[in-house]
Amino acid sequence: MKDFFRNMASFLPDSVQKVIDEFSRLPGIGPKSAQRLAMHLLQSPELKINGLAKSIAEVKAGLSFCEKCWNVCHGEICKICDDSERLETQICVVEDILDVVALEKTRQFRGVYHVLHGVLSPVDGIGPDQLKMDALKARIESLANQEVEVIVATNPSLEGETTAMYIVRMLQPLGVRVTRIARGLPAGGDLDYADEVTLTRALQGRSEYV
Amino acid sequence: MKDFFRNMASFLPDSVQKVIDEFSRLPGIGPKSAQRLAMHLLQSPELKINGLAKSIAEVKAGLSFCEKCWNVCHGEICKICDDSERLETQICVVEDILDVVALEKTRQFRGVYHVLHGVLSPVDGIGPDQLKMDALKARIESLANQEVEVIVATNPSLEGETTAMYIVRMLQPLGVRVTRIARGLPAGGDLDYADEVTLTRALQGRSEYV
Repeated sequence: MKDFFRNMASFLPDSVQKVIDEFSRLPGIGPKSAQRLAMHLLQSPELKINGLAKSIAEVKAGLSFCEKCWNVCHGEICKICDDSERLETQICVVEDILDVVALEKTRQFRGVYHVLHGVLSPVDGIGPDQLKMDALKARIESLANQEVEVIVATNPSLEGETTAMYIVRMLQPLGVRVTRIARGLPAGGDLDYADEVTLTRALQGRSEYV
Repeated sequence: MKDFFRNMASFLPDSVQKVIDEFSRLPGIGPKSAQRLAMHLLQSPELKINGLAKSIAEVKAGLSFCEKCWNVCHGEICKICDDSERLETQICVVEDILDVVALEKTRQFRGVYHVLHGVLSPVDGIGPDQLKMDALKARIESLANQEVEVIVATNPSLEGETTAMYIVRMLQPLGVRVTRIARGLPAGGDLDYADEVTLTRALQGRSEYV
């Protein structure tokens, strides 16, 4: 199928084909969507096109990663790590910065984060070295002699669980408490529609009425 | 749902939120996909990001529309209209330039094209003035006294059929032959799976064995 669209190259002007190729390389955008986006651009005014191009070119402008938690921020330390009211010894490990946003929206968590920037995925060639694993270990080691809890909040996917197990094995020898966010039925969920794994987890994780 | 993602703005750096907003405005990209694209950019090297931005900014560079058929081209007249071997009096009317590419790939059509750049769609506020309708009429009028065939090749969608009817009513008073591309079962299609409209069209459009 990819070849089919590539063969069309000769019929389209180079600049149009180039933008189609660039769009196709983005995650979740197939060759057909890339074509439709290119057609949309051709029909858009110059001002809009330049606005999009500029926002992409400048997405990283002035941005850096927090030296402590690897969240994106302006400066060296992010707002969360800089907040003296947050517990430095309760560290929530997440896959990416959108997970930080999602957890912050609950307004329930008063600890700090550690952003891995991905999950272990041997198929895609992503090992611990591609993630912020060493930084996590060093961070925990620097908190020695304190009561530390590491909450592993990677996604409940195959990769997320693998990554969680890796973290547990890496950190437990250091004598810290490692916990995993609960898995079970989502709010508003329906027993009927839940898959076996979710139901099993919901049963295993049942709690007493108090 | 859109509000939910907009509320997250305060948690994300401005430049990241801006690129998410810009992506969300593109057709077929929802707020979740836009977020994922932004995350992808944050994890991409500067070189790749600038490549994408540059290709978008330059998509229209040096491009113009053919003065005859409104296909994109370099210069005033496109390669197809400039080709003396193509029949100037057989004009295939299509919705956009990708349709030209699709038809050219068949290598069966030896006439020329007319690109409308859209279809009539009152819901979206697109009337004949937003399309290259006047240009089409003027073009046919300039071919007076010749035997002209206009092949209407808009999509077999509601808007495409409406646009086709509009063209028929506009051009028939000029005494030209107006034809419509055949509708029926697609190659490799299955009677079982065809909808009623397609089957009806396939029956109506049946042809004799010769």
